Amino acid sequence: MSTGPSGEDSLIARYFKPLATDPGAFGLVDDAAILQARGDDIVVTTDAIVEGVHFLPDDPPDTLARKALRVNLSDLAAKGATAAGFVLTLALRRADDAWLSAFARGLGEDARAFDCPLLGGDTVSTPGPLTISVTAFGRVPSGKMVPRTGARPGDQVMVTGTIGDAAVGLDILTGGPAANALVRDAAARDMLIGRYRVPQPRNALTNAIRAHARSAMDVSDGLAGDLTKLCAASHVSAVIDVARIPISAAAQSVLAQRAVDIEAMICGGDDYEILCTVPEAAGAALAAAAAQAGVALTVIGRIVDGTDAPRFLDEEGRELALVRRSYSHF
Amino acid sequence: MSTGPSGEDSLIARYFKPLATDPGAFGLVDDAAILQARGDDIVVTTDAIVEGVHFLPDDPPDTLARKALRVNLSDLAAKGATAAGFVLTLALRRADDAWLSAFARGLGEDARAFDCPLLGGDTVSTPGPLTISVTAFGRVPSGKMVPRTGARPGDQVMVTGTIGDAAVGLDILTGGPAANALVRDAAARDMLIGRYRVPQPRNALTNAIRAHARSAMDVSDGLAGDLTKLCAASHVSAVIDVARIPISAAAQSVLAQRAVDIEAMICGGDDYEILCTVPEAAGAALAAAAAQAGVALTVIGRIVDGTDAPRFLDEEGRELALVRRSYSHF
Repeated sequence: MSTGPSGEDSLIARYFKPLATDPGAFGLVDDAAILQARGDDIVVTTDAIVEGVHFLPDDPPDTLARKALRVNLSDLAAKGATAAGFVLTLALRRADDAWLSAFARGLGEDARAFDCPLLGGDTVSTPGPLTISVTAFGRVPSGKMVPRTGARPGDQVMVTGTIGDAAVGLDILTGGPAANALVRDAAARDMLIGRYRVPQPRNALTNAIRAHARSAMDVSDGLAGDLTKLCAASHVSAVIDVARIPISAAAQSVLAQRAVDIEAMICGGDDYEILCTVPEAAGAALAAAAAQAGVALTVIGRIVDGTDAPRFLDEEGRELALVRRSYSHF
Repeated sequence: MSTGPSGEDSLIARYFKPLATDPGAFGLVDDAAILQARGDDIVVTTDAIVEGVHFLPDDPPDTLARKALRVNLSDLAAKGATAAGFVLTLALRRADDAWLSAFARGLGEDARAFDCPLLGGDTVSTPGPLTISVTAFGRVPSGKMVPRTGARPGDQVMVTGTIGDAAVGLDILTGGPAANALVRDAAARDMLIGRYRVPQPRNALTNAIRAHARSAMDVSDGLAGDLTKLCAASHVSAVIDVARIPISAAAQSVLAQRAVDIEAMICGGDDYEILCTVPEAAGAALAAAAAQAGVALTVIGRIVDGTDAPRFLDEEGRELALVRRSYSHF
C-alpha cells in the first residue's frame, strides 16, 4: 500500500519547495537545512509579524510575505551582512489555496530579488491570528558585523530613504485623519500605503554600511525610539535637527494639513530604513556609495557625549516633547 | 530627558538576557546575533508549538519552554549535529511576570543542560493563542549531516527510547480511556504525561548517529508516518516487526487493557526519539555507543527494496492497517 503525502507535506511541496533553490535546503524533504559559512560569520536575525498587530486582516497575502521577509532583510542590511537565506514558520488557520499561492508567489519573487533563498520552515495550524515568523541569515567577514554599540561623539547621524511614510500609510488604512487629507490624491495615498505594506530594505547599501558606518540599526519601531536605543547601547547621546529628517512629498502634504504631526511620524514604526552613525571623515564616501546605489541618505544630526536620550530640535532650537518614542508590544 | 526602556525591552532584559550567555548574542541589545561556524556546516532547524494544537492551555510554562527548545534539539540530534544555539520568537497575549519567570527558568535550565545558548529573538503581542517558535542551530563537520535520504536495502531500522508514551500521555491529559486504565497508578500516569510535556531529545547520541547511521530523522509526527517519509526520501521501503517496537511498561499496561491500541501509539506524535537506519556492519558499534550513553536503542526492522509504504507486521506476520500514519496540520 502506498500512502500519499499528508496535507501539510503536500502544501509544502506545492507552494514552498519551488522557493527552496539552495542546495542546503534539500528540497525541503529533510528535517534541517545546511548553511555554509564560507569562512564568514553567520549573522542571525528573527522577526515575526502577527495579523491585527503588525498587519491588517485584509492586507494582500503577497505583501504579507514580502513584509515578513523584508523586515528581516532590513536587519541584515543594517548589520552590513549579505543575505544568505531564511527559514519560515507559518501559523495558519486553514490551508487556502488562493491565499497560499499568492503568498508563495510574493515570497518567491522577493527571495529571488534579494538573493535570499528559503532554506526550511514549519507550517502549523492555529486557531488564532495568522502569524508569520522568519529567521534570516547573512554573512559578514569575521568580526565585521556593524553593531549598535559603536557610535562615538562627533559621528554624523544618517538615515536612508524617508521617515514616517508607513505611519501615515497605516493612518490612512485605518481611516485616520490622513485619509481625509489625501482624499483627492490617490497616488500619494497608494505610495504611503505601499510603504506600510511593503518595506524597501536597503540591502543595496550593505557593503557601504559595513565599510563606513561605526554603528547601525534598522528603524522599525520609530526613529526616535530606535535612535534612543542605539545611543543607550553606545553610551552616547545625540542632537537631531528635525528639519533635516527626510520626509516624502506625500507625507509633507499630510503634515502641512496638520492631519498627522511630526512627532507621530518620528515615533511611528515600520520605516525599515537604516539609521547609522559615521565618522566625519567617512561621511562623503558613504554618501557617494548611496548615490551610486540610488538610495537616498541624509545627515540628520550628530552624536554627542552624554547619557540623556537624544534631543530632537526644531528650526528655532526648541526640543520636541516626545511622550512615547517608539512602539512597544507590552 | 532620559527615557526608560519600553515594556518589551525591559521584559527581554529581565527574563531573557540572563540566558544569552554566548558572546555572539551581544546580551540581546543588538538587532542580530553572530554564529561562528568554526569550519563546520551550520545545521538549521525550526519548529513552532501553538497553544491548543501542540500543547494544552494549562501545561506549566516551564515545560512549554523546555518542549519548544527540545523539539528542535531532537532534530539536531537526529542530524548528527552538535547544538550551537537558538533564537526564540514568543507571541504572547500579555506580559505576565509569574508566567514569564517560570518560562525563562525552564528555558535557561535546558539551554545550559544541552549547551545551547539563546542567541536572540523577538517578543510580540498576539490576540490569539500563545505561540512559541524556535530556530535552532547545530554544527557538523562539512558534508556530514545525517540525511533522510541515505537509507539502503539491508539497513537495520533502529529507534531510541520508547514509542507511544506521549500519545498515551495526551490521551490521559484530555480525559481519554487511558486515564481510566491507569486510575490507580499515579506514577505511570505522571511518567506518560511527562513524556508528552517534556520530550527527552537524544543529543547524547549525536556523535554516534553521525558516525554510524546512514539515514536518520526524529520521530515527531508518529513512527509510522515518519518512517514512511524517510523511506520515500530514500526511495526504499521497510518491514517493521511490531512486537519489537519498544513500549514502556506504563504504556504496555494501557495496551493490555485495550484502552489505547498499538496503531494509535505508532501513528501518534510527540515521541521525539531518533529513527535511524544503519548498515548491518555498524549496528553493533551504534548499540555499544547507545549503551554507553545510557540511551535505549532497539532494532525494529529492516529496509527493503521498493516504493511501497513501510509494512508493520504483527507476530503472525499480518500487516497492520494504518489508516492515518501521522499527524498532519491540514
